[in-house]
Amino acid sequence: MDKASIIGLVLCIVMVIFGIITGDKGVAALVDFVDPTSAFITLGGAFASILIMAPSLKGYVNNLKSFSLVLKEIPSNEEDTIRSIIELSNVARKEGLLALEEAANGIDDEFLKKGVLLIVDGTDPELVRSILETELNCIETRHASTVSFWDSLGAMGPAWGMIGTLIGLINMLQGLDDPTTIGPSMAVALITTLYGSVLANWICIPIATKLKANNTKEIMIKEVMVEGLLSIQAGENPRVIEEKLKSFLSPSRRAAMSEQGGEDIG
Amino acid sequence: MDKASIIGLVLCIVMVIFGIITGDKGVAALVDFVDPTSAFITLGGAFASILIMAPSLKGYVNNLKSFSLVLKEIPSNEEDTIRSIIELSNVARKEGLLALEEAANGIDDEFLKKGVLLIVDGTDPELVRSILETELNCIETRHASTVSFWDSLGAMGPAWGMIGTLIGLINMLQGLDDPTTIGPSMAVALITTLYGSVLANWICIPIATKLKANNTKEIMIKEVMVEGLLSIQAGENPRVIEEKLKSFLSPSRRAAMSEQGGEDIG
Amino acid sequence: MDKASIIGLVLCIVMVIFGIITGDKGVAALVDFVDPTSAFITLGGAFASILIMAPSLKGYVNNLKSFSLVLKEIPSNEEDTIRSIIELSNVARKEGLLALEEAANGIDDEFLKKGVLLIVDGTDPELVRSILETELNCIETRHASTVSFWDSLGAMGPAWGMIGTLIGLINMLQGLDDPTTIGPSMAVALITTLYGSVLANWICIPIATKLKANNTKEIMIKEVMVEGLLSIQAGENPRVIEEKLKSFLSPSRRAAMSEQGGEDIG
Amino acid sequence: MDKASIIGLVLCIVMVIFGIITGDKGVAALVDFVDPTSAFITLGGAFASILIMAPSLKGYVNNLKSFSLVLKEIPSNEEDTIRSIIELSNVARKEGLLALEEAANGIDDEFLKKGVLLIVDGTDPELVRSILETELNCIETRHASTVSFWDSLGAMGPAWGMIGTLIGLINMLQGLDDPTTIGPSMAVALITTLYGSVLANWICIPIATKLKANNTKEIMIKEVMVEGLLSIQAGENPRVIEEKLKSFLSPSRRAAMSEQGGEDIG
Amino acid sequence: MDKASIIGLVLCIVMVIFGIITGDKGVAALVDFVDPTSAFITLGGAFASILIMAPSLKGYVNNLKSFSLVLKEIPSNEEDTIRSIIELSNVARKEGLLALEEAANGIDDEFLKKGVLLIVDGTDPELVRSILETELNCIETRHASTVSFWDSLGAMGPAWGMIGTLIGLINMLQGLDDPTTIGPSMAVALITTLYGSVLANWICIPIATKLKANNTKEIMIKEVMVEGLLSIQAGENPRVIEEKLKSFLSPSRRAAMSEQGGEDIG
Repeated sequence: MDKASIIGLVLCIVMVIFGIITGDKGVAALVDFVDPTSAFITLGGAFASILIMAPSLKGYVNNLKSFSLVLKEIPSNEEDTIRSIIELSNVARKEGLLALEEAANGIDDEFLKKGVLLIVDGTDPELVRSILETELNCIETRHASTVSFWDSLGAMGPAWGMIGTLIGLINMLQGLDDPTTIGPSMAVALITTLYGSVLANWICIPIATKLKANNTKEIMIKEVMVEGLLSIQAGENPRVIEEKLKSFLSPSRRAAMSEQGGEDIG
Repeated sequence: MDKASIIGLVLCIVMVIFGIITGDKGVAALVDFVDPTSAFITLGGAFASILIMAPSLKGYVNNLKSFSLVLKEIPSNEEDTIRSIIELSNVARKEGLLALEEAANGIDDEFLKKGVLLIVDGTDPELVRSILETELNCIETRHASTVSFWDSLGAMGPAWGMIGTLIGLINMLQGLDDPTTIGPSMAVALITTLYGSVLANWICIPIATKLKANNTKEIMIKEVMVEGLLSIQAGENPRVIEEKLKSFLSPSRRAAMSEQGGEDIG
Repeated sequence: MDKASIIGLVLCIVMVIFGIITGDKGVAALVDFVDPTSAFITLGGAFASILIMAPSLKGYVNNLKSFSLVLKEIPSNEEDTIRSIIELSNVARKEGLLALEEAANGIDDEFLKKGVLLIVDGTDPELVRSILETELNCIETRHASTVSFWDSLGAMGPAWGMIGTLIGLINMLQGLDDPTTIGPSMAVALITTLYGSVLANWICIPIATKLKANNTKEIMIKEVMVEGLLSIQAGENPRVIEEKLKSFLSPSRRAAMSEQGGEDIG
Repeated sequence: MDKASIIGLVLCIVMVIFGIITGDKGVAALVDFVDPTSAFITLGGAFASILIMAPSLKGYVNNLKSFSLVLKEIPSNEEDTIRSIIELSNVARKEGLLALEEAANGIDDEFLKKGVLLIVDGTDPELVRSILETELNCIETRHASTVSFWDSLGAMGPAWGMIGTLIGLINMLQGLDDPTTIGPSMAVALITTLYGSVLANWICIPIATKLKANNTKEIMIKEVMVEGLLSIQAGENPRVIEEKLKSFLSPSRRAAMSEQGGEDIG
Repeated sequence: MDKASIIGLVLCIVMVIFGIITGDKGVAALVDFVDPTSAFITLGGAFASILIMAPSLKGYVNNLKSFSLVLKEIPSNEEDTIRSIIELSNVARKEGLLALEEAANGIDDEFLKKGVLLIVDGTDPELVRSILETELNCIETRHASTVSFWDSLGAMGPAWGMIGTLIGLINMLQGLDDPTTIGPSMAVALITTLYGSVLANWICIPIATKLKANNTKEIMIKEVMVEGLLSIQAGENPRVIEEKLKSFLSPSRRAAMSEQGGEDIG
């Protein structure tokens, strides 16, 4: 579970409730902010317009499910990946490329495993690079499509909120007979804008931003793998491979890894 | 028919109507929201300004017709494409490149067919790649021009809505004699903004986004074809080609395909 | 004359006038919307700020003149271009590259003519490509500068409209003695915003968008020429050249061309 | 002096003053628009926030000084540059590369001179290209940093104008005792927004746009030089060099140059 | 300490306070602008929504700490870097590449040191370039992630300010019984928007812009190092290396360096 995201999600809604109940009416004001009709228009309009863009009902549901990805912590395992690859390079050096087949069984990451098996099969290095980079590109395209779902929802929320407010205002202005109802009518009209803003800034924009950052991280780890696999196939020295792969780390993590890993690798 | 898009299109307008009739006036309010003059200004202005940008009257009509593309489901047929190419590579392996001519007759996709015929003609591989990639680029340029049509309409809708509202406001402010007419006059002024927003967020932006996603999908399938065709021409092993083309699939679909397709291919 | 653009330009202004005269005051309201002072501030400010950005007075005037480009229809002559190039390739095949000199006299397009003459002069193929692509880049840079002129004017219109409205509002608020003048004063203040919006959405944005589309079209035709010229110089088969250049066309136009052109080429 | 820019700068402020004095109060209204406090908040805030972004006090002052670049006319001397390079190529052809050393003394442009001296020194062509292109990239980076200064100021002006208006509004709303002061208080609150808008649209955005255009122009001239210098070093024919460099010109200027320069070059 | 940034940070807040106390209420108005509830909603919401995007609590804290980077002056040490590299090239020329090991001890910059040690180890030039460029890319990715943190906070500040204002307005409109409270209630509602704007324009946007500029600077210095190191490894002449690296400097700094450094280098 990714604590930061969950705490953030809870805190945001706490701020909204806190803002409501610290008004003159106190906790009783909460009732004024729950308006199922407004929610129906704003959220309904936003989710329906996103549905128009969806490739299919199934793809739509899958994109909604990607919400849970935000709650999942992606471990920063570049160091582990580098260590695995260096181990693999040691195996390949001492026992030959074919010995990697056995080692591949212990690998959890599907992408790395596939790469190792390609090498074991004696695939041409150019082809290995091409296959792995095609896969990398397609992963990025899939991620970009999910990010774009949340981006679109984050734009449609405030847009339909404004449509709701316009409808409310027009209704109110057409029936300006009783001046005492102006205030509450206008309040109700504004609620859709509030709902749309909260949807965008509480949920959609943070999720889209987080998924983009997760993508950058995942692609970087996979680029480490591609570089490492091609170096192993080229029969490079494990020391050189280590040096090469450590370039992906920040100086501080590189130093930490060198200290920790001194025994394992040396 | 693409159910998701049609349901979305219907739901959006349901939300708008629902928002209108849940006001104090109830269903009677619907009359207030039908204002042919406002529709004329907003939609007329938006469509006329898009006409200025059009390459020709015919191109304009074609772009409008592209609306129907949203209702058409694009099948996710990467797997079928991959299977066709593997079959072709088997044919080429066993019976030679010339045997592909007959196989080409069974191919529905014009792009793939053209590629196969280029190979059968013994066209130089560099030239095959150049011809197919030029076509890919030109397809993308044509798609981009359609997307840009809807994007422009989505920007012009709210812009002309605002122009309509400004005209309404100025008219109202110039004749501020009877205070009781302020409300309804302002309501009418706001209707153009509402029309513009609905045009943009119900129709234009969802369509533009969907067509962009469709383009990504189509280009990817065609890239699978280009890679496959060049591999066949290079006489690569059908197994290697399969491995290469499956890199375009997500891990789950790749696994599903391997299970299903085990018999066909092996 | 490009009918679509002219009809669009006329229709837009019809919408604005229609919006004005369908108010309560009817046609008499037109007088309220003609305010030379407001026009002077908004248009004056917008055009003056664009003048600051201009490279020179002459360049400024040239950019203004580019307005007429929107009225000029650019013929979709990819097919004609392709036919000319195939003819040239036939000449070159049968009578040698030097025979192209005579054929060049019949070519209207300066770019194509220049390319043919470079080939006749026996210029190195690398150099031919470099010269033609440099020219292509420079054409794009010049087009981009014109587009940016209209983009800037389209941004400056509403900006100076808002400056005019702010000045009007401040003047009005400073002299709030007679409440009956608030309405008309505010109406006048809003007119600059209206002028700015109309300038942007009626003229500038449509022109900029159209010129961008024209550029894409022109560059594509010129890329067809570059590809064709280099193929001729390389002595490629006219059939192969035809296949190559047709990749630039949409499938429907390609089919149409094959039918029509069957006799000419075969 | 660049007349267009200076006329534009003067005209813009004329429009603002004209807008002020054509109100009901006439010239007397000018006093209402001079509010040192508002200027202090808006300009002070904008310039101070830009100072936070500055690399150093010195760099900040230099960026401010770049204002004068807008007043300086950049001569469109592509033709002169091309002529100089053709002359240099003639010298190199007739008297050898070493003879360029003397010719270099007559060159004003530092970049061209440096390139000629590199050639005279017998520097490797790859290295000449790399040195000149590195310099080109670094010139662009420096220009981009100046443009970004004016872009940021153009964004910060309206932002601090809005902060000033918010402060003014809150102050006014907290002291709503005397209704007669609402108008003037609100007018004062709006003045900061006006100041911010004028700063952005009169000064910052036009300058940023102009400096961007100047950069494009300067880089193009320098690219002409790089191409020319490398051609001279490669010992290419002066006629071919002329053809190559003229690709950088628009067709009209190319024709004009051919007529004028016929005697000089031939 | 970076004086420019600190002066800017102080001046901005001075402008805000100045704007507040120059109102009718004078210094007493400051009390009206301190509203812990509003601060809680705006800042709380903004920081909480950024927390959702954070990779982890630790990463969140590190990003917040990057604030201090703005206060740190980055010395413009391109000249020193160039001098160090020329010295290294002299050592390499006279005493061989292995003699660089000793020289490396005196180098403070970790990146340069690493490069020198790679050369001393006899690493393949292609590999040296690949390792150093991978590191450069990863540095840029890390910097981009920090910049994106401040960009997001700069967008979330005003967004949550608007959410706070909407909540305040709705609360106010629901309880429109006592007209005398409208003013102060509305003032309070606007304070969250003010807080959000100040957060964005005083802190977030300037920091993001400054960190972006610092990144450009640091990457340029590191590119100088990569170029220099590869030239040393290729055994290029120190004079040529000097010429090459000076292309990274502006003409004025280049001239200044030549004067100063004449003795050291020659």
